[in-house]
Amino acid sequence: ASKVIARYLATQKSPTSPLSALDTFPDRHIGPDDKELSHMLQQLGYDSMQAFVADTVPPKIRVAAASVSNESIPPLSEAELNDRARELANSNKPFKSYIGMGYHNAVVPPVILRNVMESPAWYTPYTPYQPEISQGRLESLVNYQTMIMSMTAMDIANASLLDEATAAAEGMVLAYASSNQKKKTFFVDRGVLPQTLDVLKTRAKGFGITLVIGDVFTELRDESLRAGLCGVLVQYPNVNGSVADFASVAELAHSTGALLVCATDLLALTLLKPPGEWGADVVVGNSARFGVPAGYGGPHGAFFACTDKLKRKMPGRLIGRSRDVNGKPAYRLALQTREQHIRREKATSNICTSQALLANMAAMYAVYHGPTGLKRIAQKVHLLTNTLKLAVEQHGYKITNLDFFDTLTIDVTGAVRDADALHQVATAASVNLRRIDDKHVGVTLDESVGPVDLLRLINVFGTAAGASPLTAIHAAETSAIPLGLQRTSEFLPHPVFNTHHSETEMLRYIYHLQSKDLGLVHSMIPLGSCTMKLNSTSSMIPLTWPEFSAVHPFVPKDQVKGYTQLIKELEEDLCKITGFHGCSLQPNSGAAGEYAGLSVIRAYHEARGESHRDICLIPVSAHGTNPASAVMAGLKVVPVKTLVDGSLDLVDLKEKAEKHKDNLAAFMITYPSTFGVFEDGVQDACQIIHDHGGQVYLDGANLNAQIGLTNPATCGGDVCHMNLHKTFAIPHGGGGPGVGPICVAEHLTPFLPGHSIVPVGGDKAINAVSAAQYGSASILLISWAYIKMLGGNGLADSSRTALLNANYMAHRLKDHYTLRYKNKNGRVAHELLIDLAEFEKSGGLKVTDFAKRLQDFGFHPPTCSWPISTCMLIEPTESETLEEIDRFCDAMIQIRKEAEDVIQGKQPRDNNILKNAPHPISVMTQSDAEWNRYDNNVLGMLSEADSSNRPYSRQQAAYPMPWLLEKKFWPTVSRIDDAYGDLNLICDCPTVEELAST
Amino acid sequence: ASKVIARYLATQKSPTSPLSALDTFPDRHIGPDDKELSHMLQQLGYDSMQAFVADTVPPKIRVAAASVSNESIPPLSEAELNDRARELANSNKPFKSYIGMGYHNAVVPPVILRNVMESPAWYTPYTPYQPEISQGRLESLVNYQTMIMSMTAMDIANASLLDEATAAAEGMVLAYASSNQKKKTFFVDRGVLPQTLDVLKTRAKGFGITLVIGDVFTELRDESLRAGLCGVLVQYPNVNGSVADFASVAELAHSTGALLVCATDLLALTLLKPPGEWGADVVVGNSARFGVPAGYGGPHGAFFACTDKLKRKMPGRLIGRSRDVNGKPAYRLALQTREQHIRREKATSNICTSQALLANMAAMYAVYHGPTGLKRIAQKVHLLTNTLKLAVEQHGYKITNLDFFDTLTIDVTGAVRDADALHQVATAASVNLRRIDDKHVGVTLDESVGPVDLLRLINVFGTAAGASPLTAIHAAETSAIPLGLQRTSEFLPHPVFNTHHSETEMLRYIYHLQSKDLGLVHSMIPLGSCTMKLNSTSSMIPLTWPEFSAVHPFVPKDQVKGYTQLIKELEEDLCKITGFHGCSLQPNSGAAGEYAGLSVIRAYHEARGESHRDICLIPVSAHGTNPASAVMAGLKVVPVKTLVDGSLDLVDLKEKAEKHKDNLAAFMITYPSTFGVFEDGVQDACQIIHDHGGQVYLDGANLNAQIGLTNPATCGGDVCHMNLHKTFAIPHGGGGPGVGPICVAEHLTPFLPGHSIVPVGGDKAINAVSAAQYGSASILLISWAYIKMLGGNGLADSSRTALLNANYMAHRLKDHYTLRYKNKNGRVAHELLIDLAEFEKSGGLKVTDFAKRLQDFGFHPPTCSWPISTCMLIEPTESETLEEIDRFCDAMIQIRKEAEDVIQGKQPRDNNILKNAPHPISVMTQSDAEWNRYDNNVLGMLSEADSSNRPYSRQQAAYPMPWLLEKKFWPTVSRIDDAYGDLNLICDCPTVEELAST
Ligand SMILES: Cc1ncc(COP(=O)(O)O)c(C=O)c1O
Ligand SMILES: Cc1ncc(COP(=O)(O)O)c(C=O)c1O
Ligand SMILES: O=C([O-])O
Repeated sequence: ASKVIARYLATQKSPTSPLSALDTFPDRHIGPDDKELSHMLQQLGYDSMQAFVADTVPPKIRVAAASVSNESIPPLSEAELNDRARELANSNKPFKSYIGMGYHNAVVPPVILRNVMESPAWYTPYTPYQPEISQGRLESLVNYQTMIMSMTAMDIANASLLDEATAAAEGMVLAYASSNQKKKTFFVDRGVLPQTLDVLKTRAKGFGITLVIGDVFTELRDESLRAGLCGVLVQYPNVNGSVADFASVAELAHSTGALLVCATDLLALTLLKPPGEWGADVVVGNSARFGVPAGYGGPHGAFFACTDKLKRKMPGRLIGRSRDVNGKPAYRLALQTREQHIRREKATSNICTSQALLANMAAMYAVYHGPTGLKRIAQKVHLLTNTLKLAVEQHGYKITNLDFFDTLTIDVTGAVRDADALHQVATAASVNLRRIDDKHVGVTLDESVGPVDLLRLINVFGTAAGASPLTAIHAAETSAIPLGLQRTSEFLPHPVFNTHHSETEMLRYIYHLQSKDLGLVHSMIPLGSCTMKLNSTSSMIPLTWPEFSAVHPFVPKDQVKGYTQLIKELEEDLCKITGFHGCSLQPNSGAAGEYAGLSVIRAYHEARGESHRDICLIPVSAHGTNPASAVMAGLKVVPVKTLVDGSLDLVDLKEKAEKHKDNLAAFMITYPSTFGVFEDGVQDACQIIHDHGGQVYLDGANLNAQIGLTNPATCGGDVCHMNLHKTFAIPHGGGGPGVGPICVAEHLTPFLPGHSIVPVGGDKAINAVSAAQYGSASILLISWAYIKMLGGNGLADSSRTALLNANYMAHRLKDHYTLRYKNKNGRVAHELLIDLAEFEKSGGLKVTDFAKRLQDFGFHPPTCSWPISTCMLIEPTESETLEEIDRFCDAMIQIRKEAEDVIQGKQPRDNNILKNAPHPISVMTQSDAEWNRYDNNVLGMLSEADSSNRPYSRQQAAYPMPWLLEKKFWPTVSRIDDAYGDLNLICDCPTVEELAST
Repeated sequence: ASKVIARYLATQKSPTSPLSALDTFPDRHIGPDDKELSHMLQQLGYDSMQAFVADTVPPKIRVAAASVSNESIPPLSEAELNDRARELANSNKPFKSYIGMGYHNAVVPPVILRNVMESPAWYTPYTPYQPEISQGRLESLVNYQTMIMSMTAMDIANASLLDEATAAAEGMVLAYASSNQKKKTFFVDRGVLPQTLDVLKTRAKGFGITLVIGDVFTELRDESLRAGLCGVLVQYPNVNGSVADFASVAELAHSTGALLVCATDLLALTLLKPPGEWGADVVVGNSARFGVPAGYGGPHGAFFACTDKLKRKMPGRLIGRSRDVNGKPAYRLALQTREQHIRREKATSNICTSQALLANMAAMYAVYHGPTGLKRIAQKVHLLTNTLKLAVEQHGYKITNLDFFDTLTIDVTGAVRDADALHQVATAASVNLRRIDDKHVGVTLDESVGPVDLLRLINVFGTAAGASPLTAIHAAETSAIPLGLQRTSEFLPHPVFNTHHSETEMLRYIYHLQSKDLGLVHSMIPLGSCTMKLNSTSSMIPLTWPEFSAVHPFVPKDQVKGYTQLIKELEEDLCKITGFHGCSLQPNSGAAGEYAGLSVIRAYHEARGESHRDICLIPVSAHGTNPASAVMAGLKVVPVKTLVDGSLDLVDLKEKAEKHKDNLAAFMITYPSTFGVFEDGVQDACQIIHDHGGQVYLDGANLNAQIGLTNPATCGGDVCHMNLHKTFAIPHGGGGPGVGPICVAEHLTPFLPGHSIVPVGGDKAINAVSAAQYGSASILLISWAYIKMLGGNGLADSSRTALLNANYMAHRLKDHYTLRYKNKNGRVAHELLIDLAEFEKSGGLKVTDFAKRLQDFGFHPPTCSWPISTCMLIEPTESETLEEIDRFCDAMIQIRKEAEDVIQGKQPRDNNILKNAPHPISVMTQSDAEWNRYDNNVLGMLSEADSSNRPYSRQQAAYPMPWLLEKKFWPTVSRIDDAYGDLNLICDCPTVEELAST
């Protein structure tokens, strides 16, 4: 069948000219073709897409088609997009940056660049909540954790946070939480990165923490200050390059029960005594230096490590070693993750999506170089820095930091008029130095610097000082690291870091791990609330062009005209799509967007003299990040009920709004609701809030259902975040990166987040929420390209198709499963919630059993046990074809039949094809005797039962559908864990009920 | 263990400076590290690499270390290489070319670019001679064949040839062969591409065919000409763009028993009546238009289709559908390939390596676009061409071809002074037109042309004619294809071309196929004589930069300064490595290199008035391409014997040389020999030849054993070819592309191949051997990068390590298998030959049984049954680590034990773990009953036996070694064919004995 989708979608209706491009993106992005759309509409009883949409989206909230159309967002073909990206790339200037401040020019090993970063096998999988089909990424993330622990000499490390600044903020909050929220002073050493301080300010505000900034060696001696002290943050080496011994500071902090948080640099730690050896309690930093491009600020991976006794309070995800029911070693998201604990403790972190892909890249970098290679790189950088020091000193410059690893702070007054004179020469040589003040400049060297670069750099200093250029340099093989701070302990002794050092071996390791992971390269990943769709290759290609990837975030604006333009275009397009007025691209995850948006609302109230407004209403159906973000923004969460039909209880809402009207700050709502329906009353609900002085925060996780049909502004919101990693096709990366920009109504625009180094945001900007001014800037390219290539019509058609695909699925499944919610016309939104509660009673079968059995069909299970513990939330997206959707439905229906066997007693409740799923090859290759000697009590996960024959054959287990004979993705291990499944399968975060009750 | 390989190899001995780069390539390319090298040397009883090499390579032929050293070839780090490639890219000028002549600007669908062309899973596998681990590529190549058959409407098509010109030459020779070599006239229409004519001239000469060039409609009427006519070649559409009806020509040709060969264009065939519908017997062409970049001339895929009755004479590889022993459908290299037939007929083709990767790309392009998409593209191109015609006619230009698809020949005299005036304006607009003569220019449009390009092009014509530029164009929706020549028949109705049209589906199809194929991404591919080593990502990255990929081969020289420089550097480096004086990069496979080298030798003799010299001595151990190439070059093959120790029989050589001294033209020798040893007497052998007036051709397939240690010149050769796709790390691509340059001594340099359009080669150049002047120009980048990054020391160290790895392997295997040949010190060269003859007698086990069983261990079998039918030829290369080599040896030793069970009668001769290998998952998932009901007589492949229990368990079958539990590549089907295994497992070509005896 042809891909011309003229009849049912607007996209192809009238090519502008017979000469216009044929490589139109909607044809490639939208899965079903004309025939398939027609078939689905017919099955649902509609004769047009219009009629179907009219039944699905409430008429009241529909927006004019013109708001998102080919007029408002003209489509580019794939080749045109490439040309346009090239044009923008060319308007960025390729300077060599020595700015430092936590950002370096990373050298991405080509084998990792092409086979991890640019590989859909790595960038399309989901967060590894289904360990049986995620062992590759899990192993790699364990490598990452191991690497962080070993480099920092800490007891435990998580599988990445968003960036160094937010990681430091998590450290601060952990210190605060460790004092049982009793001690409210957090001391920040002057040498900390300015962008970290900026984010700390924002975060401290929400928790009511007082930041004291000063010299950690002198000012911390003040006993009265120490009395209220929960923690101290130091930077090692610090922003000016100095390497100081903080052991005494740690001792002092500990003496009052405060924690020592240390921000550090992984490469430096190959030569420096690691923080774990001199008393740090928490160690954070950016791991981008290990082979992740600067990308104008991100995405990078941040790490977070701590002592054993703090591990239960650690934010983020933690992968652990475990085993499957057959005793085979296997990785999984560990018991110790925040998700389990937060129920029992106060919410102090909202982190959900993190930086899995970038953490994997950094881990692979360490695997490739090994300890010896890493040390050689560090020694070289140190040598370069010493060499630079010697050379510039000869021209009269003075180095103000005697002890250093890779960064010099240079007093220029002995050599040139002022710093600006030097910067001018540098600029002429296409070189960026750090601008400190008019007397000082900073220089940071890194792995990318070769002798030619160094010579050019030295000559910048020389020329500015009036000397004639050198033509050769002499290496200064000294050490500027104090003896007592030199690392003596070994690191990375593990085999994995000492094996894969040839490119061939490295490539095989990468391919071996990826062979264990199910991604979009294999089949549909129908995760409700996650909108798992493929980003196109066209949108990925520009990302690794050096004009976009090798850009320091703090370069002068005139070097990033291309970036500036695309950021402007993306902001404008997102405003068109949401109906809002202003946009901030700074938040680097959905949860960060929530936090940013709520902070903006707080600032708005404050500006109006209403800073007492601190109540946040949140429906019980909301995603766990919502209440967590609210708590972080200093709000008190009040849950709002839902009705039996899944919709918001407007009576309860009104009651709560009235009750809290004096202090009502905000209402958070997800639309369409997390139950998968467009609620009729959304505008009424928002009106109630506005009537009581509150602002409406719209969680945009489900924006894919809305584009061009309705929008958050029309629904009544004041601010919303978008998940570019959902709706706008940034690959999920196995758990990140994400981008969570916020769009806001005009009255909130002045408060959009600022930045301490590069001015962004509104004129009454709140402090920064991310380390870099545009967050994960480089991957904005992907969403920019996605929007530009779809064009307005293609965007709206994508939403229409997403709705149709979900409704068709609901239609096919409704006679086999209980569809939990639908609207009065019988329609769901872009996802559907099916309830499996009945099977627990009738057959002892849980959601997990259905999910694991789906793995045997080569599918990633839908979102399980969220937002309702007995349910599955299924979202096909517009990108799946009818064929794939039918295959999925066939699988679900087949599993339903298998469940019936259990219900009917044909298979025992504790030994059946669902309970024993998934079935990896290692089980399939057992002899009949072993196969039947199946001990269903291993790990005590199943109820007691005699060893008995398996009530089904290998063929039934492995090939329940004929297409599996030709194409099947195999789980690599048997089921790992049953008890924790329900919780782990949520997008990482607790429900509002759980949280409100703590 | 560290990768610092200082002690045993020269590479890392002394970094030039402490500041020099750390991303040194030898560390990444050479597998074993210091510890591993030391271990291997120790096992062999050496205390230094020097001592080992001295025992391995005969002292007489050793060359001075300086010949290939870091002084003669200075190493670049990976980053430095990237910078240098960027520099060269920037010195190519990015003009838009409308030159046509068989080369177009292809639009590579990004999903194919990144996931096929740039994916090691696709570019590293070997030619699919092992169907059980190659089903993905086999399916894709069947798609290719199907596509060619459908587009051309021919009965059968092969899986690609090298380029259009050589494909046409194969067509000519097939016509000649069809006349039983009786009719020696081949008529070539004037409208044929000039580069095709050029190659035909070379090829005709070797076979003694007379070419007549003229107007096929008039001159073919000459009956006397028709009397000796074996075939006719027409181009459809022709070089000037005309579309003519050749039905009458076909009829005329057939009336005298001659064949009609048609060169054509796949895209045009979506609109034109296909050659199969108007009488063509053979249809050839370039398939690059379907999504393969121009790449300055290649690599592309060429196709070859013919009628059913000619299929047994078809050159190249043919994939067929078949089934495995369990009746499961499976693809395989079909019975009908040339390899089987050539034994019974005269050698008329030497094709071995072809263009598998590019054929796969073209097939995927058709899968992605489908018939509707392809037709839309063609219609658009045709529309553009009509639009252009209309526009330029308005300025007084005259179109000389009324019927056309995409190409106009334009008489400029009505509008401008002369063609040059127009070319000047075009050049100023960065546009290339075809230069025909001073009155005519040619313009060819393609898929890449958009409205903006067209406007610019029209304005070039306008400006030259003094008109002011247009700002808009109006599409001319007419057809310039005569009604009788319009295609009415359907094409590509097969499901595979009508399913995968969304990017998501396409990506999944690509991943699904690749999951069936074993490549270097999985494990060692120890194919003797094939040197299967990974090309680095660094060397691949520049390849797809548009400055290298989007370049027409016939652009003016000043637009390709970057290419010219790198070609010069590569030629110089290859001369340093071989010890020779001149180089031609034109041959695009090893066999093409042989043919080119022998043709140069013939031209040399001819120039000395010795054109009667036509005897070519070839050892019986030579690769089958050698005699085939000799025959093609017009030489008569005389085999020379080998001695029992595997070395050349110098007595027999001398006897033959003397016997044929008056007519001795050449001696072809492979060194180290195909038996895997450095023969002591190579210089003596060459001296004998020289003494009798002959020239020595050295087959460089085994050059990886020589670099920096010896060289072909020192061995006594006059010319050699190199396989860049072996020694110099161009990926094998699943059967191509390849590059087979030749280097020659000074006296042969004047005869190096020329080219009719772009001057290259010597001043007495033979005609072209490839369509493009530099053959597969774009992939020269890979070998250039490989050489530059290794540097001289790294190259020599690679050879040393290749020798050591092979000898260590020989050492480990020698007590378990019969090592067939070694030198007097007990050393093999870079590969080893083990003989399995004994097992046939003792256990009824053949080479194939061992090979198939190796698949169960996750390894690609070594080269089987060549050069000796009972042997395996094993080549590990320098890139494999000790660990991988040990794994392979362990597997071989385990199989030896399993064989012992058969010999001892513990497993029946016709039902054992070797005979039943490989064991795919589908077999593993059988119940015990099925597993034991194994019918070993399916397809009649095994001898009669009762149904009996399998004498081994699933565990033994699937997991014979513990490491397989963690990492195992699974064959996707059971064994396909036993009887043909022996033949098919050779590198595609028959032995010299077989050929000489025909
Ligand atoms: C409804 C909803 N809100 C917020 C989030 C949090 O987004 P992120 O994971 O990007 O922080 C999610 C994540 O799945 C979600 O589903
Ligand atoms: C010894 C030898 N000569 C020549 C060739 C032919 O090379 P190609 O396949 O590139 O044509 C081969 C191929 O394996 C070979 O092994
Ligand atoms: O109703 C619409 O399809 O927009």
